[in-house]
Amino acid sequence: MTGVFLVLDGPDGCGKSTQAGLLTKRLIASGRAVVHAREPGGTDLGEALREVLLDPSRTPDAVVEACLFSASRRTLLGEVVRPALADGQVVVCERYVGSTWAYQGVAGGAGKDLVRALETAACEGLDPDRVVLLDMDPLRAAERRSGEGDQFERRPPEFHAAVRAAFLELGEERGWSVVDAGRPQEEVAEAVWQAVVGCLGDAA
Amino acid sequence: MTGVFLVLDGPDGCGKSTQAGLLTKRLIASGRAVVHAREPGGTDLGEALREVLLDPSRTPDAVVEACLFSASRRTLLGEVVRPALADGQVVVCERYVGSTWAYQGVAGGAGKDLVRALETAACEGLDPDRVVLLDMDPLRAAERRSGEGDQFERRPPEFHAAVRAAFLELGEERGWSVVDAGRPQEEVAEAVWQAVVGCLGDAA
Repeated sequence: MTGVFLVLDGPDGCGKSTQAGLLTKRLIASGRAVVHAREPGGTDLGEALREVLLDPSRTPDAVVEACLFSASRRTLLGEVVRPALADGQVVVCERYVGSTWAYQGVAGGAGKDLVRALETAACEGLDPDRVVLLDMDPLRAAERRSGEGDQFERRPPEFHAAVRAAFLELGEERGWSVVDAGRPQEEVAEAVWQAVVGCLGDAA
Repeated sequence: MTGVFLVLDGPDGCGKSTQAGLLTKRLIASGRAVVHAREPGGTDLGEALREVLLDPSRTPDAVVEACLFSASRRTLLGEVVRPALADGQVVVCERYVGSTWAYQGVAGGAGKDLVRALETAACEGLDPDRVVLLDMDPLRAAERRSGEGDQFERRPPEFHAAVRAAFLELGEERGWSVVDAGRPQEEVAEAVWQAVVGCLGDAA
């Protein structure tokens, strides 16, 4: 039996963690076995890399970031996502290759050749059953973030605007569900549910 | 003024650190400014990744390793190697892209497409002025290592044999100097010196 692989992606501050939590809850309430994962992190190695990546005292460039995110991704897929899918569970993952394309490949300038090679090597063709892009005006998203933020959140508005544009372009290209994440939480949660419910048929 | 970029590469236990130390000493004695670097590591981020990579309790696969080594490499080039070269110094570096090809690309099976993309992105065309391959029978090299070793050193003889073969093939392809590292230390040091002395002409 094969599970269902759901991804919530989008810019910083768009509400991925909240929505992934709500989605996970609703899936569990509907009787499904669910794994909620996040990138970077989710494994011993991934969490070590998460610390390296988000530390505001370090400023790795986009190539370095793309390498580290991809290493974290491959480890997460191998240790968490693939076993859960093989077991028939639903996986809800915050961020996936879209984030590497948007943040590092396009906005950061690491280049498409590298990101493509990393995607091929890290994912080995594991495509989500559904990707939901939580889209939001980056200025609005910045207002919602609390504290000083990690080294990504601290970047200038132009960077975040480029990230948003890259996400939207990629979503168009790859047929993602785009959800307006600027609305009240429950409305967004309902839109996310509607976007994913169609592919839940066979989940445990 | 541009410095000189020298790389000593080769399998575990071939004597890279010792020979890099001796070479650095001789270069300094000849009045040159020298930076001795090693991979992975040599920067704050690189040393954090070195810990992740060499920890015997972790077993990242070859793709993950290739990503992390390349991230460490790019950081080392940006923070240490390029500035030193721009300053006219001699850089002696233990390991470089050859190690990623041999260990991860060939022996580890991460594949040439990934390693090629990572090399392009990490190095941006920065080729050493001279690469010296310290070649040695892997069984002999294993005897010289002390203690239990890191997670690379603990791998089976077939892995180390594949690494050696890959190094030799790459050396042939890229015109490296191959030095028989199974001889007494001073003889190897002299052979390394003869391999590099021709490109020292313009060093500060």
